[in-house]
Amino acid sequence: MVVALDKKPSHEVVIVGGGFGGLYTAKALANANVNVTLIDKRNFHLFQPLLYQVATGTLSPADISAPLRSVFSKSKNTKVLLGEVSDIDPKAQKVILGDQVVPYDTLIVATGANHSYFGKDNWKEFAPGLKTVEDAIEMRRRIFSAFELAEQETDPETRRAFLTFVIVGGGPTGVELAGAIAELAYQTLKEDFRNIDTSEAKILLLQGGDRILPHIAPELSAAAETSLQKLGVIINTQTRVTNIENDIVTFKKGDEVTEIASKTILWAAGVQGSTLGKVLAERTGVECDFSGRVIVEPNLTIKGYKNIFVLGDLANFSHQNGKPLPGVAPVAKQQGEYVGGLIQLRLQGHTLPEFHYTDVGSLAMIGQNLAVVDLGFIKLTGFLAWVFWLVIHIYFLIEFDTKLVVVIQWAWNYITRNRRSRLITGKEAFLGPQPVNKNNPYQATETKLPVKV
Amino acid sequence: MVVALDKKPSHEVVIVGGGFGGLYTAKALANANVNVTLIDKRNFHLFQPLLYQVATGTLSPADISAPLRSVFSKSKNTKVLLGEVSDIDPKAQKVILGDQVVPYDTLIVATGANHSYFGKDNWKEFAPGLKTVEDAIEMRRRIFSAFELAEQETDPETRRAFLTFVIVGGGPTGVELAGAIAELAYQTLKEDFRNIDTSEAKILLLQGGDRILPHIAPELSAAAETSLQKLGVIINTQTRVTNIENDIVTFKKGDEVTEIASKTILWAAGVQGSTLGKVLAERTGVECDFSGRVIVEPNLTIKGYKNIFVLGDLANFSHQNGKPLPGVAPVAKQQGEYVGGLIQLRLQGHTLPEFHYTDVGSLAMIGQNLAVVDLGFIKLTGFLAWVFWLVIHIYFLIEFDTKLVVVIQWAWNYITRNRRSRLITGKEAFLGPQPVNKNNPYQATETKLPVKV
Repeated sequence: MVVALDKKPSHEVVIVGGGFGGLYTAKALANANVNVTLIDKRNFHLFQPLLYQVATGTLSPADISAPLRSVFSKSKNTKVLLGEVSDIDPKAQKVILGDQVVPYDTLIVATGANHSYFGKDNWKEFAPGLKTVEDAIEMRRRIFSAFELAEQETDPETRRAFLTFVIVGGGPTGVELAGAIAELAYQTLKEDFRNIDTSEAKILLLQGGDRILPHIAPELSAAAETSLQKLGVIINTQTRVTNIENDIVTFKKGDEVTEIASKTILWAAGVQGSTLGKVLAERTGVECDFSGRVIVEPNLTIKGYKNIFVLGDLANFSHQNGKPLPGVAPVAKQQGEYVGGLIQLRLQGHTLPEFHYTDVGSLAMIGQNLAVVDLGFIKLTGFLAWVFWLVIHIYFLIEFDTKLVVVIQWAWNYITRNRRSRLITGKEAFLGPQPVNKNNPYQATETKLPVKV
Repeated sequence: MVVALDKKPSHEVVIVGGGFGGLYTAKALANANVNVTLIDKRNFHLFQPLLYQVATGTLSPADISAPLRSVFSKSKNTKVLLGEVSDIDPKAQKVILGDQVVPYDTLIVATGANHSYFGKDNWKEFAPGLKTVEDAIEMRRRIFSAFELAEQETDPETRRAFLTFVIVGGGPTGVELAGAIAELAYQTLKEDFRNIDTSEAKILLLQGGDRILPHIAPELSAAAETSLQKLGVIINTQTRVTNIENDIVTFKKGDEVTEIASKTILWAAGVQGSTLGKVLAERTGVECDFSGRVIVEPNLTIKGYKNIFVLGDLANFSHQNGKPLPGVAPVAKQQGEYVGGLIQLRLQGHTLPEFHYTDVGSLAMIGQNLAVVDLGFIKLTGFLAWVFWLVIHIYFLIEFDTKLVVVIQWAWNYITRNRRSRLITGKEAFLGPQPVNKNNPYQATETKLPVKV
């Protein structure tokens, strides 16, 4: 299993995080003249942009994941470690991983972002977010349980609360979730129930800013809003959530305060950098922004440490546009490829100019047949945009068989208007949403180090 | 949504359990002149024979499941309820479902079987079984975590325990699990690790009786044993497990007692009827056998109640062979179709002769390319048997798109020798096997009624 190289690599590159940023750095360095150690707390790379499709019953988690070992099994210079990095020692050039210590010559920190509840962490229990596979399975459980429990509910007010869905956050995740749930209620599940009429479901999308999808062209935001409304979604912009407790969402638009009873409140607003951002700040003095993202240099290193890179959602790169690059997959991908190239050039005594992001555009799916695509010079809506969206997402899935399975799932769902993967699973799979249970096993908690047994 | 029938049905059929037995009863009655209520504590039908493929990373849960509502959405006389039946009132002809009461004219109880630990229920914590989707995901987590933790383990004895897998039970489930894990260790994961050599893994299959696969022809058992051994599995027959505690399995063959350290002990031995069997016994006086299965009449009713049927794994039907029919899918399917037909004939004043099971044969997969098939007049082994096994399982999957996805997964795995769906997921996804944790959230516990929120 040992590959003989002309010159045994001695430069140790440690990459923390196997998302887009870390993955594409590792890919760029596979078979280069370095030793790569890729550390992730999961054994798979997750294609987050399609998580909402797991949450709404179209895809399975494995359809949007790639086992990291499998991706790098042929790269003999690449080692994959399952674990969580708890600390970094920049002077000794080591990362701490449980009771292991992993030395590095070059370190890449790409551990991404988590959800932010704007300081109201108690809302997390009532309004789950969508960052991990477990999040998606829990969201799926709540969405489908809501219809099941509505079917058996005799009290009309409670039934209405089961059939009311509130999505907080009008970026791509919130928009795509809202559209998918609307399709579920008004199309897919229409014939499946006998006591309830799922078309009575109400789906609200709450957005703090002026328009949904704020990062794309205004005319496309407007097109997306129209499409969503045609699907049946009720959109409230310039709306701030002021409280989420038990089954009540309170929100404010101007002076108008509204309370809505909803058993299924989903959080798609607000991000904050992962914990390693704070760790880096403490250990190196680098600054973070108010969202906990690490402020990086033009070549993605951190100030004072040319051998420590931060990229992806954890990085705040503002050198190009005066404001941070968005936390989207293409940014992380390009940054990973840049850093991978830079490391190799450095070993040969060269360097690269500063990182430049080639903005290929933005896209969001509204529902089957509808999407908006902003490529700058071209803007697409409707069916053509939707096809484009599908093709791009397939392109970004990194394993061929996954691409094939996903294409088939999508084709099938399109033809049958069915969603096959709508299992309610989990520990207490049929208990329905449990917002008041403080011992809710499904609360997304901070992950812990592996316990040695 | 209301379909006008010539004569509005007034006969209420309640089916408890959406496995093979309940599902095929409901299918036989779909659009018949009865009202059908199908109750299951899950919102999907699970194709249990392929669960081991979820546990070993080949398939996703949705690939082997069908949403019950989806299956019956076109059958306007069929209602699906998500819930758990806690009690039956045979005099008043009602089932109790949480705080609901569901009246019936005819009742079918088809809630299947659970694992039996032969009285040693404390073993359940250390040796999980394979009955539900959650079981499969937990088993998958333990299997793949074992390799991950071995990769990082410095103590050679502990590493050996991580690379030792013990499967208890030599029926089809145990045999298929053992073969799949052997393929994982010796083929699929061979190139994926750097510190360990997965071909050093040891896989033990322990069987109490004389031969593995005791229900098929002896020559096929022998062929299966040879094939498994070629794959690398160590088989111990006439072996009884005497203790499982923490990471040690103690077993006895004759006078010889052995202790093995293993972090991954999997239970595939012993079944017992589900709780509703005992409930029926208490409420109706019907007898159960020592495994908790309900002893049924030749027409699958219970003694004294011609409108209560029990079928599938929960039933002990010994009228044909003098011993109970095995708890396999084709038995439950045929029983369901029989009962569905009988109910309709009764409404017209007719009846049917006693139930007769047409034994189509038995089959088990040993690994890719290898299976054994016993059709009575034909016995197959090797590649041909394997193809037959694939075709039969595809046939039994009840939704077309699932068939297509599974075929693709299998084709892909065959060509690439890869297993794509090997995610480690769950609450503490990377903690590895935790046999000593009494608060292990993954303990398979008795399921509870939905809590009204």
